[in-house]
Amino acid sequence: MLPKEFLQPGSVAVIGASRNPEKVGFGVFANLVQAGFPGPVYGVNPSGGELLGHALYPSIDAIPGPVDLGVFVVPPKAILEGIPALARKGMKAAIAISAGFKEVGGEGIALERDLIEAATAAGIRVLGPNCLGLINTHASLNASFSRGTPPKGAISFFSQSGALCTAVLDWAIGENVGFSKFVSLGNKADVSESDVMEYLADDPDTRVILGYVESIDDGRRFLRVARDVTRHKPVVLVKAGSTAAGARAASSHTGSLAGSDRAYSAAFRQGGILRAGTMEELFDLALGFAMQPVPSGDRLLILTNAGGPGILAADMAERLGIPLAEIRGELREKLLPRLPSTASLANPVDVIGDARANRYREALAAIRDEPSVDIVLVLLTPQAMTEAEETARATVSVLAGSGKTVFASFLGEATVGESRRILSAGGVPNYPVPERAVQAVHGMIRYARLRPEGPGREAETPGARPPVAERSIRSALDAGRRTLGEEEAREILEAYGFAFPGHAFADTSRAAADAFRALGSGKAVMKIVSPGILHKTDVGGVRLSLSSEEEIARAFVEITSAVRRRAPSAWIAGVSVQEMVEGGREVILGMSRDPQFGPLLMFGMGGIHVEVLKDVSFRVAPLSRRDAEEMVRDIRSYPLLASFRGNEPADEEAVVEALLRVSRLAIDFPEIQELDINPLLVLQRGRGVRAIDCRMTIAEGP
Amino acid sequence: MLPKEFLQPGSVAVIGASRNPEKVGFGVFANLVQAGFPGPVYGVNPSGGELLGHALYPSIDAIPGPVDLGVFVVPPKAILEGIPALARKGMKAAIAISAGFKEVGGEGIALERDLIEAATAAGIRVLGPNCLGLINTHASLNASFSRGTPPKGAISFFSQSGALCTAVLDWAIGENVGFSKFVSLGNKADVSESDVMEYLADDPDTRVILGYVESIDDGRRFLRVARDVTRHKPVVLVKAGSTAAGARAASSHTGSLAGSDRAYSAAFRQGGILRAGTMEELFDLALGFAMQPVPSGDRLLILTNAGGPGILAADMAERLGIPLAEIRGELREKLLPRLPSTASLANPVDVIGDARANRYREALAAIRDEPSVDIVLVLLTPQAMTEAEETARATVSVLAGSGKTVFASFLGEATVGESRRILSAGGVPNYPVPERAVQAVHGMIRYARLRPEGPGREAETPGARPPVAERSIRSALDAGRRTLGEEEAREILEAYGFAFPGHAFADTSRAAADAFRALGSGKAVMKIVSPGILHKTDVGGVRLSLSSEEEIARAFVEITSAVRRRAPSAWIAGVSVQEMVEGGREVILGMSRDPQFGPLLMFGMGGIHVEVLKDVSFRVAPLSRRDAEEMVRDIRSYPLLASFRGNEPADEEAVVEALLRVSRLAIDFPEIQELDINPLLVLQRGRGVRAIDCRMTIAEGP
Repeated sequence: MLPKEFLQPGSVAVIGASRNPEKVGFGVFANLVQAGFPGPVYGVNPSGGELLGHALYPSIDAIPGPVDLGVFVVPPKAILEGIPALARKGMKAAIAISAGFKEVGGEGIALERDLIEAATAAGIRVLGPNCLGLINTHASLNASFSRGTPPKGAISFFSQSGALCTAVLDWAIGENVGFSKFVSLGNKADVSESDVMEYLADDPDTRVILGYVESIDDGRRFLRVARDVTRHKPVVLVKAGSTAAGARAASSHTGSLAGSDRAYSAAFRQGGILRAGTMEELFDLALGFAMQPVPSGDRLLILTNAGGPGILAADMAERLGIPLAEIRGELREKLLPRLPSTASLANPVDVIGDARANRYREALAAIRDEPSVDIVLVLLTPQAMTEAEETARATVSVLAGSGKTVFASFLGEATVGESRRILSAGGVPNYPVPERAVQAVHGMIRYARLRPEGPGREAETPGARPPVAERSIRSALDAGRRTLGEEEAREILEAYGFAFPGHAFADTSRAAADAFRALGSGKAVMKIVSPGILHKTDVGGVRLSLSSEEEIARAFVEITSAVRRRAPSAWIAGVSVQEMVEGGREVILGMSRDPQFGPLLMFGMGGIHVEVLKDVSFRVAPLSRRDAEEMVRDIRSYPLLASFRGNEPADEEAVVEALLRVSRLAIDFPEIQELDINPLLVLQRGRGVRAIDCRMTIAEGP
Repeated sequence: MLPKEFLQPGSVAVIGASRNPEKVGFGVFANLVQAGFPGPVYGVNPSGGELLGHALYPSIDAIPGPVDLGVFVVPPKAILEGIPALARKGMKAAIAISAGFKEVGGEGIALERDLIEAATAAGIRVLGPNCLGLINTHASLNASFSRGTPPKGAISFFSQSGALCTAVLDWAIGENVGFSKFVSLGNKADVSESDVMEYLADDPDTRVILGYVESIDDGRRFLRVARDVTRHKPVVLVKAGSTAAGARAASSHTGSLAGSDRAYSAAFRQGGILRAGTMEELFDLALGFAMQPVPSGDRLLILTNAGGPGILAADMAERLGIPLAEIRGELREKLLPRLPSTASLANPVDVIGDARANRYREALAAIRDEPSVDIVLVLLTPQAMTEAEETARATVSVLAGSGKTVFASFLGEATVGESRRILSAGGVPNYPVPERAVQAVHGMIRYARLRPEGPGREAETPGARPPVAERSIRSALDAGRRTLGEEEAREILEAYGFAFPGHAFADTSRAAADAFRALGSGKAVMKIVSPGILHKTDVGGVRLSLSSEEEIARAFVEITSAVRRRAPSAWIAGVSVQEMVEGGREVILGMSRDPQFGPLLMFGMGGIHVEVLKDVSFRVAPLSRRDAEEMVRDIRSYPLLASFRGNEPADEEAVVEALLRVSRLAIDFPEIQELDINPLLVLQRGRGVRAIDCRMTIAEGP
């Protein structure tokens, strides 16, 4: 958590305040003064003198009072020296604006480490280095070298890119969009996005948190914080560098499909964070959250004075799965007399091209208290009779305090500019084209749906026996092995509640026949058991559908001789005779470890769906039950689990349970590096799942 | 084709010119006068007098000279009377602005029919009725009741929604975006989007054609025109109402998956038309086409003064499959000395935050003549040293005439507004966020790739024997049947070059064994032949993998008795013994008829891919070879045709041939309503395809 001295300091010192207007040290000091910070602002400059009506002090020690926040615009070594001096003045928070640290490599890396060490020793938190600074409009605090200060508002923004901060500030000032806090994170040597999010969650002046993120260092903390923050207020992030990081080299299917971007997407989703695809989407959503209540439902009513824009909005709503409210019952009765007879009483509701403001007002009044409508989108095209400004006023006044979420799109430019300003001033987010309004609506609905239930929500997995798994892993590690044998992996999974088909080892054809009889199942599979052979099918080491003792005995001879012939150097222990499970649908469950987020679980339909079509979903462990359920439904091929072509529906609930068990296992044993259960056979609803084959690699814990 | 009198008339008459500024008849006349139309403008008003310095004539007959274009703002019946009167004045083109026709139903439908009849009889083409009119800025012609006239430019826009016309006009005037022609189509009783597109293709003042379309009446003409027009210049359309029209009730897989929107998408693609997803995308693309040359290749160079926006642009490029140009060789040598040592020499090329205009200029000069770069995107964030306006000037002047396609995104607002105007004035399309610039780049690349080779490009299908197919279809129609039997359908497809597995009919177990021997293949399939049975498997009427005469004889007895037991009322003719084709991949080829576009072909992988996952592609027949090739590659499951998991690649070329043959068949026989070849087995490359089963429904020709 960020100490409050960063954004609500009682006093600020600028180390490196400069009288040269070309210097950053001037810009920061001038911003502090011009934004009207009410507490003392101390400038430190070796040559002393005065700047903008404030005395400059020749040294830190010369500052006459206590300092909460120190802003450093001096070279790296001078910052290192200044930290203890300002600690003596009571400083709790430091902003290192200067560059020359980790980002330049070499000595800079050591300097950054030294900086954080010195600060930590003095109990001081550091923002940056190599950043723009920060702004809190509600405290009249501009401790940055921005060009100007944005108007007050409810949007807070943090950014890993200083240049994007400047661009967003410039946009906010030019478009008169209100902001609450700006935080430029720079190198994130100490203060991270998680710290800022935690702080903003409790900030009464922030309604929506935006961020631009390139990388997250402590993914697990980030996810924990996100889960907590998004219960209180929306977080919308742009994650850049999303496609650059390719898949990692890995030995499992899961590992080869799990790229860094998959982990970020999964973590954002689980943390209730909305991921914006573009900067424009980020701010479109921000306006919605800043100005309007989160919708209490998803039923949208579109009010328009022209067919075309109404259809465009309805198309986008359908594409995004937003239901249009039905116009019937009382609403219909109320609308009917207020609209001309040619007006459409479908949704979009068309008030017709000759509608003046009053007709809009009447229609809006009818909608205002209608319980079957959650969201209202008001569209307007500038036609001959149109009263854009008066319609904007009607939209604002009629729907204010209605509890409905209200959006607008007034199309055009020359004759609608003023009406847009009226909408914005009245708290109605408005967009130049209807589609963007609907996309923003969609983001708000998604937030309402995704919002996590809160932390501590990992599902129970009764009956897991960690000690059994631990023994297997320990003995393999002690033997210096990194890949577990099928028997070992199976033992571990069985200890976490996975059922495998019945099976027995046999080293003679007679023993194999006995084993088949003991299984008591209709059909059996026989597989070679030979530690050196990875792909059993390739060497003729697998036979399916064996249904009598004679077939079993014959298969034993055939398999062992085939393997001897094709893999002469392999040692053959014998065969495994397994119950053959029929009629199930194949799925894959997997786990790999992400450097930022830890265990990353994968789910997909088996065979071509994972291997060729790469149709898989990911989540970060630990999973909640909802996470696991969504994971199953996220894949395109999900309909294959439902009933189709006369198939009974598969046991989806058992798949969810299986995912939760893998999640538990991954959390309990950081030694497990990668895991594929492939295939897991999903039987008919109520009959559970059977793990058929599995692979697991391990390593000494972190 | 639109007569030239619509957009380049020598003289114009306004029937219903009014002195009341509230009336549409005033608006139209005032626009004509105020836009400065150089030819005579005649106002007709029963009370005569004067308007805006022009005499008003009490009747059409009183007009003293010839009239090329008549604009009607009088009630429907008065338009009907006016047509022959103006015909006598030489009118070739009429704009019916007035409403009260088909859109009001009832009598309006008859009035509209009468209007077109009267006009056709007089050799006059009609735009509208129920429209806004049209504008040609290059002829100083504003024959509409718009509010104002947009500046001159290279973009032309037609719209089926008058309100969207007004909105776009308002935007163009407010943002100072140049337009060439505006055409409001209204009810499209006569002049259609195809007429307008044809005209604009030859218009030297139009570089890009935009349109808003809700429905297209003559789909086949539209496609023909589009193919021709898009060879000359880009067409970008928004198709509204895209998701509303659900799938149609149909008896085939193809029919049930082919919605109206699929047909529009297919036709747009084949016609080389870019389909914009939103109005914003439409205009983002328009700016690119209007200002910049179509890129000669797709290699993009991003020049930026900050990492963040560069990454956002690169992410979007990767998402859209746009390759980033490599910085090496001569380009690298030229850039190296012009940039500071800390500048990035990867792509995005980062000139670093302290770059003034001169550093941008130097870098751009190095890029200007570099053959390995096709497209340049210049990004700028407003930092302390940034010279936005001078950088805009450098971008314009250095890259002008370079042959490269140039885009820009200068982020922010307050301090970059003027620089954006400089870019626009200098012909560099620029966007508020980098992602939109990259999306516009992508549209231009797609246009270059999609542009059709031209009309008359249907592929040859040698060896087709239409007479054989005709005989089968004729005899079934004569017998009053709508669904063809398997034998009949097979005969028709064989006449179009499809190979089926060898097969023979047998009505005794001995005959079946003889038939098996005669086939000479390893394995056989036996199917019941019974006209009343649609789903043979359900009644035990199919056996697979029969590999000896004994098995065949036994299967005959088993099949016939099973069917007798389960379908006691069915008449059993005998069985069909078929060669069993092994190892192929199943695909589906299908055809259904779209009311607008005619035969719509479908392709997909067999089984779950079509039935459950709905992973299919569509094209309108006749297909070019490229159409067929793209159709095959369009589906998500396309990788299943390639080599995977040790499978040999399938015979993709044979699938393309098969699609071309179905296309030919659908064109030759409008009687065929729906057709599924399911499955078509695709063998290994070089071994062709085998049609296994097929369904066909027919009806008397249109």
